[in-house]
Amino acid sequence: MRDVRTNQFDGGAAFVEGDWVPLSEAKLSLFDWGFTRSDATYDVASVWRGSFFRLDDHLERFFRSLATLRMSIPHDKAEVRRILHGCVRAGGLQDAYVAMVCTRGVPPRGARDPRLATNRFYAYALPFVWIAPPEKQRAGIDLFVSRRQRIAPESVDPTVKNYHWIDLVMSLYDAYDHGGDTSCVVDAAGNVTEGPGFNVFVVSDRVVRTPDRGVLEGISRRTVIELCGALDIPLRVQAVPAEDLELADEVFVTSTGGGVLPIARVNGRSLRHPAPGPVTQRLQDAYWALHDDPRHRDPVAY
Amino acid sequence: MRDVRTNQFDGGAAFVEGDWVPLSEAKLSLFDWGFTRSDATYDVASVWRGSFFRLDDHLERFFRSLATLRMSIPHDKAEVRRILHGCVRAGGLQDAYVAMVCTRGVPPRGARDPRLATNRFYAYALPFVWIAPPEKQRAGIDLFVSRRQRIAPESVDPTVKNYHWIDLVMSLYDAYDHGGDTSCVVDAAGNVTEGPGFNVFVVSDRVVRTPDRGVLEGISRRTVIELCGALDIPLRVQAVPAEDLELADEVFVTSTGGGVLPIARVNGRSLRHPAPGPVTQRLQDAYWALHDDPRHRDPVAY
Repeated sequence: MRDVRTNQFDGGAAFVEGDWVPLSEAKLSLFDWGFTRSDATYDVASVWRGSFFRLDDHLERFFRSLATLRMSIPHDKAEVRRILHGCVRAGGLQDAYVAMVCTRGVPPRGARDPRLATNRFYAYALPFVWIAPPEKQRAGIDLFVSRRQRIAPESVDPTVKNYHWIDLVMSLYDAYDHGGDTSCVVDAAGNVTEGPGFNVFVVSDRVVRTPDRGVLEGISRRTVIELCGALDIPLRVQAVPAEDLELADEVFVTSTGGGVLPIARVNGRSLRHPAPGPVTQRLQDAYWALHDDPRHRDPVAY
Repeated sequence: MRDVRTNQFDGGAAFVEGDWVPLSEAKLSLFDWGFTRSDATYDVASVWRGSFFRLDDHLERFFRSLATLRMSIPHDKAEVRRILHGCVRAGGLQDAYVAMVCTRGVPPRGARDPRLATNRFYAYALPFVWIAPPEKQRAGIDLFVSRRQRIAPESVDPTVKNYHWIDLVMSLYDAYDHGGDTSCVVDAAGNVTEGPGFNVFVVSDRVVRTPDRGVLEGISRRTVIELCGALDIPLRVQAVPAEDLELADEVFVTSTGGGVLPIARVNGRSLRHPAPGPVTQRLQDAYWALHDDPRHRDPVAY
């Protein structure tokens, strides 16, 4: 692939069909099954103050997702890492949201056999995208628990990061209709699953709980699970009834696009502890402190 | 919009952001939620020997889908019709697969609120895409009934035609692994739902059955339901256990991309009647005869 210059593109860059391009040229065919069947997988890493965070974990999950969907790309992990660094460098970004994407591609004209398609790889880096505006990150987000059901694992494997989000998007509209900022959805048994781009955690009587199934196994979720161990905070990874959210002492969500973010209200009702609650605050501080840990840092050479 | 000439593009044309372009330029942004959330709806009409078939019904369903997803486009039905005709004319196509698509679009940089996005409209016409090659259309298709579950109506409304197809795509791989040509999937109760782009019908003891829920309400499905009425063929729209397919006298599938197509084998086992069975043949003949009915024809002015 062609070499890329630092600051080659203003405000972000993409890698499309083997070359770096500005974001405005980052496009895919209307006929790519990645669009017409949402037959795609992706992963998103973050760059914070010039360094990737846990990039190895994101790369590992991405390649695992590719295998599950029977996709392959002409790059190994080291090359994908180089491409992602290239996107950040070309965009001159210090804080960035960095995506790697693989689509099924386009089968030959007239064919409907996905085995005949050449899978396509895309990557891009954008300025960091928070899932909530700064004031909400401090004062807490209003979460609405929609009764819509997250697509079940028996249909789409949630551990393969995917773009099947109509359920989550429609739950956002449910939230807006009820005065909420964002939403989460449930499973068929009425347990909470996840929201649009984040995992959910509940704190009651100093015990942290997060759903064990039907959710993306988020890298930020994993970070919080590990931090609970390191900080001796009792944690249970188990089914969490949706009703428990309103009654909780604290609720927080985790996402690559924001880390640990406090929830202030659930379904319009304030939680027991004003946000951020003490456990949320402790985990949020530890989450950001971990960004200085050399084990998880991968600095961009601008 | 700019006017379009007959045969302006060889072999197909697209309407993208207000203008006609060749298929090679039919692209959407990598950041369009239509891709990154599969937050889109679409419909596909067919042109057969220079005439659209049941275009009104497709337009009506498309606009109903838009409303359910809270999307809007800057064109009314009459304009969309004109655009679709333009795509067929520009591509000089006599037999065509004609798609209309609406995506959520791209919210302003950094925002994650779908209400802030301008929805985008795309359309294109391609040479007719059969869901099976010609010899299979005559001799019958090998159908594999995968135990994967179709995304449930509690998650994504199947009557809104959508691109949430990973379940269907992975079921295709299940079919290939078992020597099948194509696949269908089930619901949580083990009833058959639909396949990648088609509805399923079962004929046992001269009674036709097709699933009542968890499926797209296909226009071809509706045509067959209406034809059963017209031809006095007993029909039940009800849950169909997956086990019934192997034991049926006949099985056929319906799709805009092929009409009524016979199934020869289910899970490797030949059906009682060699394909096409008598009921399938009768409905297939009536299906194509209906294309001459002026009520359903909308000729393209080349």
